[in-house]
Amino acid sequence: MKSHVVWGASNMAHANVYVTLKKDILDPQGEAVKNALHTLGYKNVMDVRVGKYIVLTLENNSENDINAVVEEISKKVLSNPVIEDFSFDIVED
Amino acid sequence: MKSHVVWGASNMAHANVYVTLKKDILDPQGEAVKNALHTLGYKNVMDVRVGKYIVLTLENNSENDINAVVEEISKKVLSNPVIEDFSFDIVED
Repeated sequence: MKSHVVWGASNMAHANVYVTLKKDILDPQGEAVKNALHTLGYKNVMDVRVGKYIVLTLENNSENDINAVVEEISKKVLSNPVIEDFSFDIVED
Repeated sequence: MKSHVVWGASNMAHANVYVTLKKDILDPQGEAVKNALHTLGYKNVMDVRVGKYIVLTLENNSENDINAVVEEISKKVLSNPVIEDFSFDIVED
């Protein structure tokens, strides 16, 4: 029997995914926040857009290309490509 | 009459605010996303946390300390300090 340890081959990674409404899509929630801020006296706030911020913790085993997996998850599950854009960054622990 | 133009004294800035649930607070939405991902075969996703991502567009006039304003807005309006944490970064245009 042989045990084969590859250091750093299986650890954890974090992916931060940012999902935002596309520019031309109305954002009633953002509009409501903007109005609330104006009422509270923050007159220099010109625009507010509310999106989602999702943190994924992934097992970073060498067979998987984390980048490709996170892009696929973002496109298929976390965002609606008709009305939303997404971006992400990956932090390896 | 005198006109006084200070270049760059009044322009726009963007603030990206990230609001997340505190670590010890249960996140049913994140749990649901995680289960959906497992069902779809993404077994290497260990944890999912869903937060908010808010983009503020601010008029950056010199009287206001943008940093202090964004911190105040994040604390008072965009997050619930009992269960949520926030962080932000500011991009001057």
